Amino acid sequence: MSLYSKRGVSAQKEEVHAATKHLNQGLYPHAFCKIYPDFLGQDANWVNVMHADGAGTKSILAYLYWKQTGDSSVWKGIAQDAIVMNLDDLLCVGIYDNIVFNSTIDGNKHFIPGEVLAAIINGSQEIFDLLNNYGVHIHYLGGETADVGDVVRTIAVNGTMTCRWPADKIISNDKIAAGDVIVGFASDGQANYETEYNSGLGSNGLTSARHDVLSKWYANEFKESYDNNLPNDVVYIGKHLLTDEITLPNSTQKTTIGKLLLSPTRTYAPVLTYLLQHHFEEIHGLIHCSGGGQTKCMKYLPGNFTIVKDNLFTPPVIFDIIQQNSGSNNKEMYEVFNMGCRMEVYCKPEAAAIMIAAAEQHGIAAQIIGRVEASDTKQLIIQLPNEELRY
Amino acid sequence: MSLYSKRGVSAQKEEVHAATKHLNQGLYPHAFCKIYPDFLGQDANWVNVMHADGAGTKSILAYLYWKQTGDSSVWKGIAQDAIVMNLDDLLCVGIYDNIVFNSTIDGNKHFIPGEVLAAIINGSQEIFDLLNNYGVHIHYLGGETADVGDVVRTIAVNGTMTCRWPADKIISNDKIAAGDVIVGFASDGQANYETEYNSGLGSNGLTSARHDVLSKWYANEFKESYDNNLPNDVVYIGKHLLTDEITLPNSTQKTTIGKLLLSPTRTYAPVLTYLLQHHFEEIHGLIHCSGGGQTKCMKYLPGNFTIVKDNLFTPPVIFDIIQQNSGSNNKEMYEVFNMGCRMEVYCKPEAAAIMIAAAEQHGIAAQIIGRVEASDTKQLIIQLPNEELRY
Repeated sequence: MSLYSKRGVSAQKEEVHAATKHLNQGLYPHAFCKIYPDFLGQDANWVNVMHADGAGTKSILAYLYWKQTGDSSVWKGIAQDAIVMNLDDLLCVGIYDNIVFNSTIDGNKHFIPGEVLAAIINGSQEIFDLLNNYGVHIHYLGGETADVGDVVRTIAVNGTMTCRWPADKIISNDKIAAGDVIVGFASDGQANYETEYNSGLGSNGLTSARHDVLSKWYANEFKESYDNNLPNDVVYIGKHLLTDEITLPNSTQKTTIGKLLLSPTRTYAPVLTYLLQHHFEEIHGLIHCSGGGQTKCMKYLPGNFTIVKDNLFTPPVIFDIIQQNSGSNNKEMYEVFNMGCRMEVYCKPEAAAIMIAAAEQHGIAAQIIGRVEASDTKQLIIQLPNEELRY
Repeated sequence: MSLYSKRGVSAQKEEVHAATKHLNQGLYPHAFCKIYPDFLGQDANWVNVMHADGAGTKSILAYLYWKQTGDSSVWKGIAQDAIVMNLDDLLCVGIYDNIVFNSTIDGNKHFIPGEVLAAIINGSQEIFDLLNNYGVHIHYLGGETADVGDVVRTIAVNGTMTCRWPADKIISNDKIAAGDVIVGFASDGQANYETEYNSGLGSNGLTSARHDVLSKWYANEFKESYDNNLPNDVVYIGKHLLTDEITLPNSTQKTTIGKLLLSPTRTYAPVLTYLLQHHFEEIHGLIHCSGGGQTKCMKYLPGNFTIVKDNLFTPPVIFDIIQQNSGSNNKEMYEVFNMGCRMEVYCKPEAAAIMIAAAEQHGIAAQIIGRVEASDTKQLIIQLPNEELRY
């Protein structure tokens, strides 16, 4: 049994898919988000998308960091995580504007005071104000907070986005074809709309990352930060405190394990807003490498293809740290984490330069990471310098 | 310190209101839900509402009942709770149709298997199918499920609704005026669209109700069902097992404590759909007596009034059971629970008969429970047969 399973986390969610298969699956089976007729406007030229996601267990990391350091600014990062995990999914179907958002915050009042709720709520509005400058208009229509300490140990931060969008401006992934290349956008570094180095971690795989990297000290000191029914050998089995200092590779810049784990999920909205406005026709597909990591694309292919990823980025340092602590093999790592690439654009080879330039103009590294090949079955080959992974 | 406070539950949510006061408060300050311009359609004649709510800690009761009896049908009730806690709030601003919904289910995989998720998801669709027969069209646009056992002890079931609605068909509560009467719709009994007796409890005050009514046996047997940091003297301090039998008053019908506590929250949608379609002008205000119980109305008054409620229903048996177990006084009970009346219609005295007849036609008891009087300050007087409560 994997560490992942022992901790009660299923990256692939088979059970949920079985439960939802009877529901309306939307208009485009391969689109990254479910797309529905325009129930809200009754206009055949428009569609509706409603999407929910959240910060997951990353809120626990923020809690630990805040308790240990007193720095409550991390809660704004959690607000960003809950927003971007929604927004960047919507980007993948071509939506970047005209969105309404509301948040659901379930908290345990014994551990989470009003100042934390205020930091999350106000932080959400600040992020929307920033995105506004890039033509991404998201209206914050309130939300619900509930004191449910018998259900929630610390805090759960979720959000929902709803939008109407022109039907002819949807990315359905149906244009993905043999011969396409995959342009990857780096998850780490510092985009020119970010204020500090981003580790690239996003908001997936954080249950693993937290337990694998952090020291047993947290298990004893903060019993509210994990399921006390978990076997001791999977709880906080790493070497680090959140305050441990790290020097970034090829740099003199110092940071901490906590900052790396808590880097707010980067949004690619400024880059994709530009590309969707000016190069819509050239974009054949978009994949947000969230839960499922580098295997995420396999759920949205419009046919049998072999996806070859043979030029991925060198994984950022946070993934080295996680792997060194957990002892996970590469196959597991690439199935859980984005490993340095959180957004994929599928396009013809001749369009790749446009995609790469748009990312680089925003200070984000980008390159052709792989390609789509004709095949009799769906398969994924990840070619690392010294190892081939097959899924 | 009250039992309510010791358990980390704040009925009035002062801290959250302080945190959200900087956000856009919408177009109508006294409306039951925040109402915004039509961001989704850019039409001045329409408005948008986005609303989030959930089953709260009622999911724990379902969990205990399911573990103890093996009856998984209670999870459909939790789906109904999450839906109706949203829908009946929307009804209060006049919205009964053209709604999109999605759900957010955070679960602990160690305790909540896939069959439970399936029961909630499929149960949601069944409820929408039923409402469809009453002209209430809610489209289920999917949702998110997350394995977050380190955050959530058992399961948290939340939902979000978004809708566009004609601006001239909004109930803003601004028409509430001195001289109005308050028609109350009973929360208990069996509406002609319900399949069994409804205790009237709704989905508020369930943390109190669960701990006050259920026996310490649950604390020992199901440690995952409460915050283990709570002082022992507030955890499961009642006399009952969920399977304890009760004969309903003035009836030979038997039921159990579990069935009474888990009665799915009644929706008033069939009644209010009729009234909003045919008697919109006569409705001055609508209040869903959810969190805050019989004091809820005080947050939505458009001016200084004395609200006198001197003819409330005799509280249904579930509230007697809760009060007998908790020893709460009447002032506390009416501030937390609906006490038998979960929906209030404010109207002129001459329109009351219309409202009452509409409820009765659906098998729901209704009567004039009070009135709105001119006043220099906002105050609420609840006159019980032998006691006057002032808030």
